[in-house]
Amino acid sequence: MRIPKPLSDLIDSFQKLPGVGPKSAQRLTYYLLHVPQIQLDDFAKSLSNLKKDTVLCAICKNVSEADPCPICSDDARDETTVLVVEQPLDILAFERTGNYKGLYHVLHGAINPLDNIGPDELHMGSLFVRFTNGHTNVIKELIVATNPTMEGDVTAMYIAKHLKSVSPETAVTRLGMGIPTGADLEYADETTLTQAIQGRRAL
Amino acid sequence: MRIPKPLSDLIDSFQKLPGVGPKSAQRLTYYLLHVPQIQLDDFAKSLSNLKKDTVLCAICKNVSEADPCPICSDDARDETTVLVVEQPLDILAFERTGNYKGLYHVLHGAINPLDNIGPDELHMGSLFVRFTNGHTNVIKELIVATNPTMEGDVTAMYIAKHLKSVSPETAVTRLGMGIPTGADLEYADETTLTQAIQGRRAL
Repeated sequence: MRIPKPLSDLIDSFQKLPGVGPKSAQRLTYYLLHVPQIQLDDFAKSLSNLKKDTVLCAICKNVSEADPCPICSDDARDETTVLVVEQPLDILAFERTGNYKGLYHVLHGAINPLDNIGPDELHMGSLFVRFTNGHTNVIKELIVATNPTMEGDVTAMYIAKHLKSVSPETAVTRLGMGIPTGADLEYADETTLTQAIQGRRAL
Repeated sequence: MRIPKPLSDLIDSFQKLPGVGPKSAQRLTYYLLHVPQIQLDDFAKSLSNLKKDTVLCAICKNVSEADPCPICSDDARDETTVLVVEQPLDILAFERTGNYKGLYHVLHGAINPLDNIGPDELHMGSLFVRFTNGHTNVIKELIVATNPTMEGDVTAMYIAKHLKSVSPETAVTRLGMGIPTGADLEYADETTLTQAIQGRRAL
């Protein structure tokens, strides 16, 4: 017996999502057979409108309904600090802390030569423009918060190097590295422990 | 910062799926920002059409594009045997074995008094009708393949008991229980081992 086409179509769509295998895709599809049509229609509408109703903020490249985005147009934010992240989702993580009041910049990826992703494939140009726009440079510090991966490290180094030529007076920092809260020292890997020793602070 | 509405709408829809938590819903939504609009539209169309383009087969209650379904209308199938399952997805599992040639019946659930699901909430009436329709009863054996759970067992017992009054000459069987292929005896639980001893076969 082959799976009816309306079901196999949806299974195919689910399977294209990251982390959803053939079995999960089947399970989700058959589950949706039991939900009211209105819920399916709502789901469908959010999917088609996802990109139609959002734009990238011209300044920080975050996903937003308005341009400039609510953060860039918020006078209460500290515009002397910009935090660079790889993905829009990373901004949510920093906003949840409630302890960062500066601005952001979203690269939408990281430099990855193996995947042919260089600085030109990222929102890198628009980052450096923020330091040269206008007569005075208001940004005093750029915090590079790319992921602690090979690609994130390369991207951080590229930004630091390039910014020196564009705006030498701006401080460039990288997120502190070390033991995460609640972790068990016994299970920490060598690199993390090495970073933790290098990043030790006076008590 | 609040999440833009087009994104939070989709996050909400994903979160309603079984096994998808808030974090996965966010991750999937932000991932979809990077896919072409056509893929989003295809996904949306499969969702809205899922139930519109499918019906339940009047005979076996399986999900199908046609009524009766391809299995019920296939002359090559053995119509003397009917296998009862809880969900349409279970049929796929039996079809994959390639070793079952009879017909099916889908209950769309199992008896579960705690959730107020009794025989009337399931496609139980249509099952018994298959034994009384027409002058001669062609079904010789009913294989109950409900899940090996409390609910599945109760449902199996209900079917066996009720069928005795409707069609006493029909044999009612339940799937064999025991050690699954490839399992390690050391890790088998007591119930499974007990079932395996009770269900032992001559070599």
